[in-house]
Amino acid sequence: MENGSFSKATLGRLPSYLDVLRKMDSDECVYVSATTIAKMLSLGEVLVRKDLAAVSGAGKPRLGYKREDLIRKLEELLGFEGLTSAVLVGAGKLGRALLQYDEFELYGVKIVAAFDSNEQTLSIGSKTEILSINQFDDFCRSRDIKLGIITVGEGSAQAVCDQMIKSGIRAIWNFAPCKLNAPESVLIQNENLALSLAHLNKKLCVNHR
Amino acid sequence: MENGSFSKATLGRLPSYLDVLRKMDSDECVYVSATTIAKMLSLGEVLVRKDLAAVSGAGKPRLGYKREDLIRKLEELLGFEGLTSAVLVGAGKLGRALLQYDEFELYGVKIVAAFDSNEQTLSIGSKTEILSINQFDDFCRSRDIKLGIITVGEGSAQAVCDQMIKSGIRAIWNFAPCKLNAPESVLIQNENLALSLAHLNKKLCVNHR
Repeated sequence: MENGSFSKATLGRLPSYLDVLRKMDSDECVYVSATTIAKMLSLGEVLVRKDLAAVSGAGKPRLGYKREDLIRKLEELLGFEGLTSAVLVGAGKLGRALLQYDEFELYGVKIVAAFDSNEQTLSIGSKTEILSINQFDDFCRSRDIKLGIITVGEGSAQAVCDQMIKSGIRAIWNFAPCKLNAPESVLIQNENLALSLAHLNKKLCVNHR
Repeated sequence: MENGSFSKATLGRLPSYLDVLRKMDSDECVYVSATTIAKMLSLGEVLVRKDLAAVSGAGKPRLGYKREDLIRKLEELLGFEGLTSAVLVGAGKLGRALLQYDEFELYGVKIVAAFDSNEQTLSIGSKTEILSINQFDDFCRSRDIKLGIITVGEGSAQAVCDQMIKSGIRAIWNFAPCKLNAPESVLIQNENLALSLAHLNKKLCVNHR
């Protein structure tokens, strides 16, 4: 299977496989089977077998996969060989919540800096640097940043999007509740939390009517 | 079309339709066509026509839909007639970011209270009440709360999930990066932000290789 042709669902399981494999005793488990992994994660065996075949081809009959090889393949696939650097614009509550989200690095992305136009937020403690938006362009160009996260309000999201594209960013994760206009070559992924909650609420209402 | 049988994509567009319809001049626009709405939202006409037909059947030939009827149907469908009350457990950065997210009410859900075991967070200003976790059960039972949001860490998520179910909650929106065990009758929706970012990063890496 080609890189990148994994479904979102499969991609979602890969980090759990990696996690389980890393936690195994390296002396005892030289080989590991889809059955073992499926049991450890309470997943269907057929599903895991299919996922692993997509990651690393067929395993050895009766033995399964060499644990170290599988770890290496998963790390490669998930892009962990080099952590992608990302920047975030909008250091409000949501922005700062994301800055504290340690999980991102486990999934191959590191937020290296955050930017805000509001001078007040610049002084607030955070383990990631919060810089003035005036430094944005220089910072992104000098570090060749390709990934940007928008956590400003609806009113300024398009302006931030434009600035990101001008500064060389090619993929944008947008939390503002609005549609962004961008050239087709730029990847835009909208994260509409309200919509996600509405979806759950709708199911709840239907179930309990 | 039955309530609840809308796809997530369609459901996602309904609030924008409602928004656009509400903003129209009520005297000038008694009737409104799918074409008009499609233009205002830069969406495909066929798509909008299909969505509106699902919401309110066929419009009047040449006229379209009666604006007020369409608004009422959308509000009904989106469950805005009665706002669903939700509670949140875990008033850390992410929890408090969600408490400030005004969009939820536009989508039919109101977070009526947040709970935390950490006494320190209880004093922090927020427009939503932050209560001690000890009050959780009484609060949920007395107000018949059915929707819960988990924004605690991985370590305490299962315990919070168990407590929610014991207190009568039937749908859980889980931000903790772990799988929750719950009876099948309880709806669990996992919001894995790290996975969402990993997905975008993967596409970026593939596109720019």
